[in-house]
Amino acid sequence: MSTPSRRRGHDPESVLSIAVGVFNERGYDGTSMEDLARALGVTKSAIYYHVPGKEQLLARALDRALDGLFALAADERAATGPAIDRLEWVVRQSVRVLAERLPYVTLLLRVRGNSATEQAALERRREFDAFVSHLVKEAAAEGAIRPDLDPALVTRLLFGAVGSIAEWYRPERGASADDVADALVTMAFDGLRG
Amino acid sequence: MSTPSRRRGHDPESVLSIAVGVFNERGYDGTSMEDLARALGVTKSAIYYHVPGKEQLLARALDRALDGLFALAADERAATGPAIDRLEWVVRQSVRVLAERLPYVTLLLRVRGNSATEQAALERRREFDAFVSHLVKEAAAEGAIRPDLDPALVTRLLFGAVGSIAEWYRPERGASADDVADALVTMAFDGLRG
Repeated sequence: MSTPSRRRGHDPESVLSIAVGVFNERGYDGTSMEDLARALGVTKSAIYYHVPGKEQLLARALDRALDGLFALAADERAATGPAIDRLEWVVRQSVRVLAERLPYVTLLLRVRGNSATEQAALERRREFDAFVSHLVKEAAAEGAIRPDLDPALVTRLLFGAVGSIAEWYRPERGASADDVADALVTMAFDGLRG
Repeated sequence: MSTPSRRRGHDPESVLSIAVGVFNERGYDGTSMEDLARALGVTKSAIYYHVPGKEQLLARALDRALDGLFALAADERAATGPAIDRLEWVVRQSVRVLAERLPYVTLLLRVRGNSATEQAALERRREFDAFVSHLVKEAAAEGAIRPDLDPALVTRLLFGAVGSIAEWYRPERGASADDVADALVTMAFDGLRG
């Protein structure tokens, strides 16, 4: 006997993916369970078969983005060698995570802390920011960053540029994630002046 | 005889400023006329004395941000001299406009095109982006930008970093708009490597 889920062709992964698309389009706060049901093509009552609630979907979606970033921070390549090289590796890999998990990272970057779930996600984001900030400070201490640049501002501007990629990056438009990462690393580390 | 407006101490400028604060905090779509009335300290019926509607406030707020950017584009200093110097000037001045009109630019950067007003604002943003993009291409054509950098990606990443400043810049925290502009220009134009 097929379950209602099977009949609609939804597994937890496709439910999450469709829901994140709706959250990004309408805003999380502007999305109702009815909107989700419509996007999934199920009735308003059947939606509760697929998901207990909106906030649980949000938590899973935000974890999808954050787990990608924390996997970088835990990687061997972020832990050994000159800090400036590790920083470059982390910038490149962050662009890759952003491109691979684009709708999830987009959602994460729009979180404002309006619920316990959003606050927990912001807390994890701050942890990742602190990891990057530490790396920039190490690189500065090793003399690999211009002494006239404030490491705190470098961290903000560098990862501000990374985050902004979520607003315009569309893989189908030509530039690959590697192209974007190359351009960012070249510009930020060596400067755009010819 | 004092008007209801005077009694509450609201002129159009303070109404706009308070409304933009509420829009940024709750999201424009999540803000009701009742929320605005509460923030202004007036009754739900008195709010219509101050503003015909939410969307008119949004339009005025978005123009506040866009007029600042278009004033740069129309400035003599964006029109004469080597393109790379004009680009640097425009980046610096964009940071200054962002800092001076912070809540208005923050609102502009969150616009998704959900109404005619939002679409008109996005259209003006695209016009400003096209102006910057043209400047980057001119600088590349003059040989002032590394030939291995795609001008389209440089434009996106550079102004992505500018826009990201709205997410964390707080004048009371120490760094001035000039400090931030200096750091961005140094990093993006000359590179962060020491």
